Amino acid sequence: MKKVEVFMKKRGINPGDYVEVVEKENGNHSIYRGLVMPPYELSEGETLTLKLDNGYNIGILVDQIVEIKVLEKAKPREVREFKALLPKKPNLPNVTIFGTGGTIASKIDYKTGAVHPAFTAEELALAVPEIFEIANITPKLIMNILSEDMKPEYWVKIAHEVAKALNEGEDGVIIGHGTDTMGYTAAALSFMLRDLGKPVILVGAQRSSDRPSSDAAMNLICSVRMATADFGEVAVVMHGETGDTYCLAHRGTKVRKMHTSRRDAFRSINDIPIAKIWSNGRIEFLRDDYRKRTETDVWVDDKIEEKVALIKSFPGMQSEIIDFLVDKGYKGIVIEGTGLGHTPTHIIPSIERAVQEGVAVCMTSQCLYGRVNLNVYSTGRKLLKAGVIPCEDMLPETAYVKLIWVLGHTQNLEEVRKMMLTNYAGEITPYTRFDTYLR
Amino acid sequence: MKKVEVFMKKRGINPGDYVEVVEKENGNHSIYRGLVMPPYELSEGETLTLKLDNGYNIGILVDQIVEIKVLEKAKPREVREFKALLPKKPNLPNVTIFGTGGTIASKIDYKTGAVHPAFTAEELALAVPEIFEIANITPKLIMNILSEDMKPEYWVKIAHEVAKALNEGEDGVIIGHGTDTMGYTAAALSFMLRDLGKPVILVGAQRSSDRPSSDAAMNLICSVRMATADFGEVAVVMHGETGDTYCLAHRGTKVRKMHTSRRDAFRSINDIPIAKIWSNGRIEFLRDDYRKRTETDVWVDDKIEEKVALIKSFPGMQSEIIDFLVDKGYKGIVIEGTGLGHTPTHIIPSIERAVQEGVAVCMTSQCLYGRVNLNVYSTGRKLLKAGVIPCEDMLPETAYVKLIWVLGHTQNLEEVRKMMLTNYAGEITPYTRFDTYLR
Repeated sequence: MKKVEVFMKKRGINPGDYVEVVEKENGNHSIYRGLVMPPYELSEGETLTLKLDNGYNIGILVDQIVEIKVLEKAKPREVREFKALLPKKPNLPNVTIFGTGGTIASKIDYKTGAVHPAFTAEELALAVPEIFEIANITPKLIMNILSEDMKPEYWVKIAHEVAKALNEGEDGVIIGHGTDTMGYTAAALSFMLRDLGKPVILVGAQRSSDRPSSDAAMNLICSVRMATADFGEVAVVMHGETGDTYCLAHRGTKVRKMHTSRRDAFRSINDIPIAKIWSNGRIEFLRDDYRKRTETDVWVDDKIEEKVALIKSFPGMQSEIIDFLVDKGYKGIVIEGTGLGHTPTHIIPSIERAVQEGVAVCMTSQCLYGRVNLNVYSTGRKLLKAGVIPCEDMLPETAYVKLIWVLGHTQNLEEVRKMMLTNYAGEITPYTRFDTYLR
Repeated sequence: MKKVEVFMKKRGINPGDYVEVVEKENGNHSIYRGLVMPPYELSEGETLTLKLDNGYNIGILVDQIVEIKVLEKAKPREVREFKALLPKKPNLPNVTIFGTGGTIASKIDYKTGAVHPAFTAEELALAVPEIFEIANITPKLIMNILSEDMKPEYWVKIAHEVAKALNEGEDGVIIGHGTDTMGYTAAALSFMLRDLGKPVILVGAQRSSDRPSSDAAMNLICSVRMATADFGEVAVVMHGETGDTYCLAHRGTKVRKMHTSRRDAFRSINDIPIAKIWSNGRIEFLRDDYRKRTETDVWVDDKIEEKVALIKSFPGMQSEIIDFLVDKGYKGIVIEGTGLGHTPTHIIPSIERAVQEGVAVCMTSQCLYGRVNLNVYSTGRKLLKAGVIPCEDMLPETAYVKLIWVLGHTQNLEEVRKMMLTNYAGEITPYTRFDTYLR
């Protein structure tokens, strides 16, 4: 049993209790009031998690709790599967919502006052009843991790769950995901889900300190709209503006969290979004080149190589960082170069050695917008000559995810180059539209 | 003598000659025509640099040249100091333009057809005669490097040259700089130039492949306008839009190259620009809180610690990268975390160890926009507890430069924290304006 579980058991505290906690840290006392959350499955278990009145979660080290008082006991809840309560309506499409942890699940908890991190259909219905008018919703918690703890092996797990649901007849799936690394996961699913013909929608919620109201509800409604649309790709659906006007669906390989806290943090980079989505069901597709719904079975191409690093080039950078990765057996390195894709020239010999030892070195730009071009300047040409693979207009994060996937298929550098420069999921655009900058 | 110099000498080829070169690479022949550029001082000297007719420079490995033909010999040029030609006009302000290499110098070369990388006043006058109507211009080449090869010790050199010029009576200085790392240098000068009371303007040029015309002329004119204005800070002056409408002056600590090739690549992040500048001399200040011109002497606070790294957090990141930096004796690490400033929780023990061994670990966000907040989520609180310094709304690049500077002053972690969280040059804004997102 984890430390926090012992702590709670000893004091008769249950998830859902509203408590007051006195914490002592470095001689200072702090007092917090909030709902006791159940311990995260993957946490080390030394922290009591409280959902404060403002909706934020905080973790308090059990060892620093000097006093805890239950102000209101949790109401006993009957946890049932919603499916058992409500038969599927035959005229509605079927959508599974996968929970992975992260804000969207806990935010819904916040709105309902529910405290189970496993969001049941009942809880979803209480929080966002509109979605049950749009589709037969099956919620399924497949993991419960902080999004910053997402990792490649979890991408594989999610991909298989998604494929299973779709091949068993679901019309679309939604993945609730913490926003920190949602872009990375969206890219990973874009590469792994082959012959995809149904919508796979990632959705989350931002907590904006200046706006206590949640964006989870509208994001979730719009994600169900998109998950039931005539669409067959991986997309991120999040607020398009700070107000509750519309959501945007962004292609999974071209999307990035561009703001720490705003509701409209997710933006398409070097590309326009796929669609604008309103809560009422109106969807305006902003482009023609998206994949429509097809009846093909999806399969998971889940071969990956995890020894890949994403590093940044900067003035004063030393080549020892590259050398270290090579010595440690890394198979791939994605560099966020400066400008068109440059590094200090003095580290090029280390890059050359990396390539000679079979490490795939890929170049992206820390500008984020625009396209890598290693033919313009002498440094670029030297990098090309050293064997660097220029990643066109791919996001650094997408190139990182793609390299993990590509290296799972081949570690022959010529093959890697060919695959990195093949457009599998819209990650490379042949021409960057002028109107995609800072939008 | 470098290889390329031997090659040129042997064949009687001089900088400025218009040549046709046949290059053989992997069995393929390519033919290039262009002006022979003088070898870069810091290059390895194995490459002949040609300025092609389209204005781009390319480097061709001497070993791969199978034929070279001079189509037109360079006209003999009399290189004179402009100052000797033209007496200073007493009614005009005095501005020194420092050259460091990079696009602005060579672009001007391109326009004049001149091939000397050292831009003389004469060449500037031929290229952009307007600036001599605005100020008495003294050009001075202080280094000639590719901007990707910029490094902390050069920042110190530039800072001293700037301070000397200003304290000797110049009314403002301009630094021509390659755009790749101009933001980093602008931040460095912002921290190093103390009691600055005159304009220090960094300017460069983007080469946009879709627009062969240069942005150097307007950028340079606007930078002279700003260098003679009632202003006393470090700023980057570059195109505000893609057309030749106006330039923007961005605060040196808040500016970032956001596009690989567009003319309006430089943007203020989490802050609004200081001013809009038109070629005709109109300047519209967009804010009130900028420093005006004062008559104080500037001094250079040039203490730096170069053992600092800028690394990125990503799903699948291993703690061995942190361990390596600590083992290698790094004194500071700036992390580009996810979201509000997070890393995978499994690397926190390595961060804790880093701090325990006296390494300053600073947190920024890879979102770029917004503000780090380590109090919201449990991972953030763990990072705080491990001793991480949250860098507010500082850009990752600015935090990196600042940490180099701060660690030059103290390596006591409490002092480092205090300095990192002190606003020295506008790098921290207390409140992020809503209208600064994606602008």
